[in-house]
Amino acid sequence: MTVPAAVVWDENSLQLRLLDQRQLPENTRYLDITSLDDACQAISTLTVRGAPAIGIAAAYALVVCAKRSPADGLSRVVETAAAALKAARPTAVNLAWAVNRLLTVSRAGGGLADLAREAQTIHQQDRQICRAIGNAGRHLITPGCRVLTHCNAGALAVSELGTATAPMYLSHQDGVKFKVFADETRPLLQGARLTAWELDQAGIDVTLICDNAAASLMAQGEIDLVLVGTDRVTANGDVVNKIGTLNLAVLCHHYRIPFYVACPSSTFDPGTATGADVTIEQRSANEVTDGRAADVLARNPAFDVTPAALVTGLVTDLGLLDYAAENPLEALLTGQLKHCH
Amino acid sequence: MTVPAAVVWDENSLQLRLLDQRQLPENTRYLDITSLDDACQAISTLTVRGAPAIGIAAAYALVVCAKRSPADGLSRVVETAAAALKAARPTAVNLAWAVNRLLTVSRAGGGLADLAREAQTIHQQDRQICRAIGNAGRHLITPGCRVLTHCNAGALAVSELGTATAPMYLSHQDGVKFKVFADETRPLLQGARLTAWELDQAGIDVTLICDNAAASLMAQGEIDLVLVGTDRVTANGDVVNKIGTLNLAVLCHHYRIPFYVACPSSTFDPGTATGADVTIEQRSANEVTDGRAADVLARNPAFDVTPAALVTGLVTDLGLLDYAAENPLEALLTGQLKHCH
Repeated sequence: MTVPAAVVWDENSLQLRLLDQRQLPENTRYLDITSLDDACQAISTLTVRGAPAIGIAAAYALVVCAKRSPADGLSRVVETAAAALKAARPTAVNLAWAVNRLLTVSRAGGGLADLAREAQTIHQQDRQICRAIGNAGRHLITPGCRVLTHCNAGALAVSELGTATAPMYLSHQDGVKFKVFADETRPLLQGARLTAWELDQAGIDVTLICDNAAASLMAQGEIDLVLVGTDRVTANGDVVNKIGTLNLAVLCHHYRIPFYVACPSSTFDPGTATGADVTIEQRSANEVTDGRAADVLARNPAFDVTPAALVTGLVTDLGLLDYAAENPLEALLTGQLKHCH
Repeated sequence: MTVPAAVVWDENSLQLRLLDQRQLPENTRYLDITSLDDACQAISTLTVRGAPAIGIAAAYALVVCAKRSPADGLSRVVETAAAALKAARPTAVNLAWAVNRLLTVSRAGGGLADLAREAQTIHQQDRQICRAIGNAGRHLITPGCRVLTHCNAGALAVSELGTATAPMYLSHQDGVKFKVFADETRPLLQGARLTAWELDQAGIDVTLICDNAAASLMAQGEIDLVLVGTDRVTANGDVVNKIGTLNLAVLCHHYRIPFYVACPSSTFDPGTATGADVTIEQRSANEVTDGRAADVLARNPAFDVTPAALVTGLVTDLGLLDYAAENPLEALLTGQLKHCH
C-alpha cells in the first residue's frame, strides 16, 4: 500500500491534479487544476496544505497557466499568475519561494519547457530532501519501537516520504515492524484526519489517541520515541511547531523518552535568536468552539515553542543533529553534522 | 448569575426534574421524571451525569416511584425500582450507595415521608460536602489568580458548588477577581460543553483552550494553579481522574505550578494500595474516531493515574491535605487534616 500523492503532475500533458485534503479521510478525490482560478482556490481553501506541498503545487500551476498562454504573451501571463498565486496564502514562505524560482526562469527568457523543468526540479529536490531526512533518522525506528507523532508532517504536507514520517516510511520499506501512535492534534485534527490516514494507507501499524492520552501511555512505558515536524528552528535551537508539541516535549523530559524533530535544513532560521522572538499566530476561537462547546471566550494559539533544552536532536536532510553534543546552528553552519547514511 | 441545578426537587409535590446535560450547552432543558422508566432512561443515557448527581437523582426517583404506589405495596415497589435504578449504570458506586440508603429506610418500615426525607438528606449532605471543599480551598483562589481546570468536577456533576469548582464559586461570591482556563477535555469535551458553560453562567471569567495549549500557557507564566477533581484517591495518595489529568500534573511539576485535587473524603479508597492497582476503563474507540478521523485503530483510556509525587495537595470536605507534609491516608484516618475554615 502507498500514500496517495498530494500533488500529481503529468510531465507529458503538463496536467496538474491535487488531492482534495479537505475531504480526507472520507474521500480520496483529486481536483484537476486547469486555470489560475482553480489553483488559487485550491491553495486558499486548503485543498492542498503543508508548506512544501503548496510550493510544489503553485510551481506546477504556473506551468499550467503558461501552457494556456499565447507564445508571445507567456512572460506577461507568468507575471500575473505569479502575483495571484503568491497572494493566495501570503504567509506561506515556500509558496513565494517556489513561485519566485519560476519567475526567475521566465525573466531570463525561459519558455514553457524551461518552466516545466524548473517546477519538476523543485518537486524532485523536495523528494530528495525527504529521503535524506528519512535516511538520517531511520536508525531511530528500531524493531518493536513505539513512536508517537503529532500533527501531520507527512507525505500529504510535503512529498512522497514527508519529514517526521520519512524515517518511518523507510524503516517500513525495510520490513522493520514498529508501531506508531498518532495523536488527534486538536483543534484541527491533522493527526486524526491526515497522519493516521496516510500511515494506515501505507500499511504501517498506527493507533489514534487523544492528545490527552500521551502522558498515560508514556507512564506505562508504551512510548519509546517522539518524532514530530517543525515550522521553524531558531538560532539557539528552539523549535516552533503545532500547538501541543511543547506538552509532548515536557512529558518526554519527565519520562526520559527521546524527543526528535524532523525538518529540512531550510527550516533553520539563523536570523531569529530564540523562540521567544517568534510571533505566534493566534487563530480563530471558532476552531475551538465549533461543535459542542459553550459560547465563551476561547484562546487558540496555533503554535508553541519548545526550548532547545527539551529537544534530543534534529533529523535533517544534512544528517542527525544531537543537541546534547553541539550548538545546533553552529553545527549546521560549519557542516559538522553527523551523517547517518 | 447562577448555574442551573442538575437535579431539581419539589419537596411539597414530590416532583423531580433533571437538567438534560446531553443538550448542553445549546439548550437548558429540564425533563420531568414521573416514572421508573423515565428515571432509568435519564441515568443510562447521561441526561444526568457525575457520580454524586446520579446518586441524588436516583434517590429522588425512588421517592417518585413510591408516591405512585398503593400504600400497601410501597415496600414491593421500592424494591423493584431500586433494583432497576442500580442496573441503569452499574459502575456508578454513588448510585448504589444512595439507593441502598433508601432501601434501608424502606426495609425498616419507613413510609413515603421517610423516604422523601432520606433523599433530601442525601442531597443536603452533598451540598454541605461541596461547601466544605469550597471553604478548604477558597484561599487558593487569590485576586488575579489564573486557574486551569480539566473535565467537569462542577455543579453539574455534584450539587450546587461542585468539587473542583467549589473554591472558585465561593471566591467569586466573595468578589475575588480571578480567571479560569477550562480545557476541552477530549474526547467527550466535558470542559468545553459543561465546565466552560457553568462557570460562564455563574459570571466567572472563563476562557476555553484546547488540551494542547496547556504547556504553552504555563511556559508563558499564564497559569498560577491547576485544580481538578478525581474519581478515586488510593491509599498512597495516587489520583485517578479523567484522561489528561496526568499530562497537566507533569506540566505543573516541570513549571513549578501547584497542582491541587478537590474531592469529598469519601473518594479516598484505603482498600487500594496504589494507582497501579486500579483497572482503567477503556472506552469505545468511537469516541475518538467519531467525526473526522481516519478509520483506524484507536485507544481510548477514560482515566489516568497521577502519582502522589506530582500532587501538591487534596482539597477535601475535611480540610486541605498537603502532600509534602503528611501521608495522605494516614492523615485522613487519624484526623490530622489542617482545617482552613
